[in-house]
Amino acid sequence: MNNVDLIVKNGTIVTMDEDFTIIEQGVVAVSGDTIFEVGKSGDVSMPETARIIDARGGIIMPGLVNTHTHAAMTCFRGLADDLPLMDWLEKHIFPAESRLNYNTVLAGARLGCAEMLLSGTTCFCDMYLFEDAVGEAARAAGMRAVVGEVLYDFDSPNYGSIEKGFEYTRYLIEKWQDDPLVSVAVEPHSPYLCDPELLCRAAAISGEYGIPLVIHVSETIDELETIKKRYGKTPVGHLADIGVLSSRTVACHCVAVSDDDIRLLSENHVNVSHNPESNMKLAAGVAPVPQMLSAGITVGLGTDGPASNNDLDMFAEMDTAAKLHKVNTLDPTVVDARTVLRMATIDGARALGLGNVCGSLEPGKKADIIVIDTRKPHLTPMYDPCSHLVYAVRANDVSSVIIGGNIVVENRRINTFDVDEIMAEIKEIGKGIALKNGR
Amino acid sequence: MNNVDLIVKNGTIVTMDEDFTIIEQGVVAVSGDTIFEVGKSGDVSMPETARIIDARGGIIMPGLVNTHTHAAMTCFRGLADDLPLMDWLEKHIFPAESRLNYNTVLAGARLGCAEMLLSGTTCFCDMYLFEDAVGEAARAAGMRAVVGEVLYDFDSPNYGSIEKGFEYTRYLIEKWQDDPLVSVAVEPHSPYLCDPELLCRAAAISGEYGIPLVIHVSETIDELETIKKRYGKTPVGHLADIGVLSSRTVACHCVAVSDDDIRLLSENHVNVSHNPESNMKLAAGVAPVPQMLSAGITVGLGTDGPASNNDLDMFAEMDTAAKLHKVNTLDPTVVDARTVLRMATIDGARALGLGNVCGSLEPGKKADIIVIDTRKPHLTPMYDPCSHLVYAVRANDVSSVIIGGNIVVENRRINTFDVDEIMAEIKEIGKGIALKNGR
Repeated sequence: MNNVDLIVKNGTIVTMDEDFTIIEQGVVAVSGDTIFEVGKSGDVSMPETARIIDARGGIIMPGLVNTHTHAAMTCFRGLADDLPLMDWLEKHIFPAESRLNYNTVLAGARLGCAEMLLSGTTCFCDMYLFEDAVGEAARAAGMRAVVGEVLYDFDSPNYGSIEKGFEYTRYLIEKWQDDPLVSVAVEPHSPYLCDPELLCRAAAISGEYGIPLVIHVSETIDELETIKKRYGKTPVGHLADIGVLSSRTVACHCVAVSDDDIRLLSENHVNVSHNPESNMKLAAGVAPVPQMLSAGITVGLGTDGPASNNDLDMFAEMDTAAKLHKVNTLDPTVVDARTVLRMATIDGARALGLGNVCGSLEPGKKADIIVIDTRKPHLTPMYDPCSHLVYAVRANDVSSVIIGGNIVVENRRINTFDVDEIMAEIKEIGKGIALKNGR
Repeated sequence: MNNVDLIVKNGTIVTMDEDFTIIEQGVVAVSGDTIFEVGKSGDVSMPETARIIDARGGIIMPGLVNTHTHAAMTCFRGLADDLPLMDWLEKHIFPAESRLNYNTVLAGARLGCAEMLLSGTTCFCDMYLFEDAVGEAARAAGMRAVVGEVLYDFDSPNYGSIEKGFEYTRYLIEKWQDDPLVSVAVEPHSPYLCDPELLCRAAAISGEYGIPLVIHVSETIDELETIKKRYGKTPVGHLADIGVLSSRTVACHCVAVSDDDIRLLSENHVNVSHNPESNMKLAAGVAPVPQMLSAGITVGLGTDGPASNNDLDMFAEMDTAAKLHKVNTLDPTVVDARTVLRMATIDGARALGLGNVCGSLEPGKKADIIVIDTRKPHLTPMYDPCSHLVYAVRANDVSSVIIGGNIVVENRRINTFDVDEIMAEIKEIGKGIALKNGR
């Protein structure tokens, strides 16, 4: 017991363990970077020397896991909206992205980390350019992250040709292999921007190192039609055919998927990242999440990039996910609050291969914990903490954030870096982007 | 100029006037309860005696107008979710509502006012039982409100039989007729809970006093089928037939409406209250808002009651409205940010017959103003204030709220009443509800 150095107390614990245990007047005891004990006040001994976080009657839960982001796109948030996808990409996003460099990605990712921390996300899976900068931003912020350089058939502003892209990916894997928070995935963009050879090489690297392969799959009906025309298969069918799908695969979006696709995803133990707000805003469609869950697929939740959402807010994403599938199926019982909470925590962690590391509050797991301040009109009264977390809590209600036992946010102040400095830097970057993009 | 006693300065003003004027480095000068001048810093004289609200580079805009609420249902928020509509109503909500009285509705409405103020809503249109209590809650909070007692064919826990219901409505109209903030509407529940005679008498009162008639219309496909069976018409067709529809009508929901219904709504100058989050959560369906807007119908936004949402948060509602219609039509250009902003401000005010009173920042209108603090990671950088307001701003980013020239919220503290006292009262009420509802 002498090793317990941090105590989170005086809150309702939503553990997100296998039995969905909820503990009123609960205490989480942390030793170093690890959860030592989770229990009822009185049952957990609290050494006097331990640092105390008082939840003040609020909710204590595992940090949220955002399974799909392009965090540095905070730089482009609100640059262009309400446009046809190709206009938005080709006239606004691609021109702005062609001028990115390591430093702008670092700044954008740091801002993204600030936003994620202040909204209760403790772990994110990122895909972008200059991804080493995202790893550095996460490390500096004290966030858990899975980072991966986007790979595609054409030249990248970061690494140039695809040969260099694979070299860069191996460099990332080796650089970050012993980091306690940051790990690396191999991230081919999509079946429509990556030829089969690229995809197979990526899958080989994923297998060689036992790391996730993160890829956009069947985001739109256009993509489905393109791939059908090119390969005579659906995107999922094509990926299955060339041997890219495995339990290490994180398939992002999966909007335009058939029953056969769902069967293939399930049989290959593929994990899915569901991104409802981005899919809505870009008018991609509604992923058949109830069917995927019925097929036993592990579905995590993700925000996608903040240029197509326009935020990295997992609380808003949970609320939207729960409601979207109800109206889409005209069944108010589907994707209930507890299912959504699983998607945003333990199932997200499982999807990223971190199911034994984070996503629930259980002894032996890393201490990734958030505290929700419920002393607010919109959270009073509280009949069911799970209902509140999905349907009423807002990102700004997160008061404290602990990652790997480290108190990263306390009373909504970030301890690990200077947010004002980052916002000032991004404002300057934003002025340049606005000018060059003709705003 | 000596009459200017309040200045809101140092922000980007989104005026919501006819031309959608946006003023950077703007100033709003208020005299008494009225807006005196709106302009660029330097162009508006600022008397030294005036009280100053500094927006600190944020956004200054008209207060949001929530066109459909049952505010006192804050008491039941999260009591039951993810259930079939009839289970939810009959097993949870109706039993709880049968035990309501003036004092519980007063407490619930006060809590609702606190939540609405802290999320930037300055005006709301309410339908419930013991509605005089809601008027009193709004008056005490300093909020603009349109209140109306729900009328239906069966006995009410408040007034008993429908004869008394009409008497109570006339009592409300006379009691509140000279109030600067609170006004009254006649509010028959719906075509399925009100017989044609009740509806026609309600319409006559609306005409006699020139006040709104607020009614739920075509919320679900079940309702549509019930009314078709009973009257051989759609709900809209039936209401048109018996002469209930007029420019004073606020038709809430309008989910299950046909092209013919939309034509009838338009021809009769009916206003629509769109409640996307409630319609999603209860799996009612998606109202054809793009078609209603094309038909020239004035569409306001509303949250519906916090038991079916689960909040009174108009910022979340704007975000959802913009996204829902994009995915529903598979067209990312529909219901753009500016359209949604109109729905949540000036068009909501117009729908309630308050188009000359509030909903935009223009000289001569009542000073209902909110300030958004944008010095946050999730609001940095800012390319377009309208995009931010719909897709990125959260309710908790509202820093100050002015209603009729009165500073009701300053730095997120409510000046007009004690929020902690109300939360404590509601917690006690909630314990009783939980007990009696078998939780």
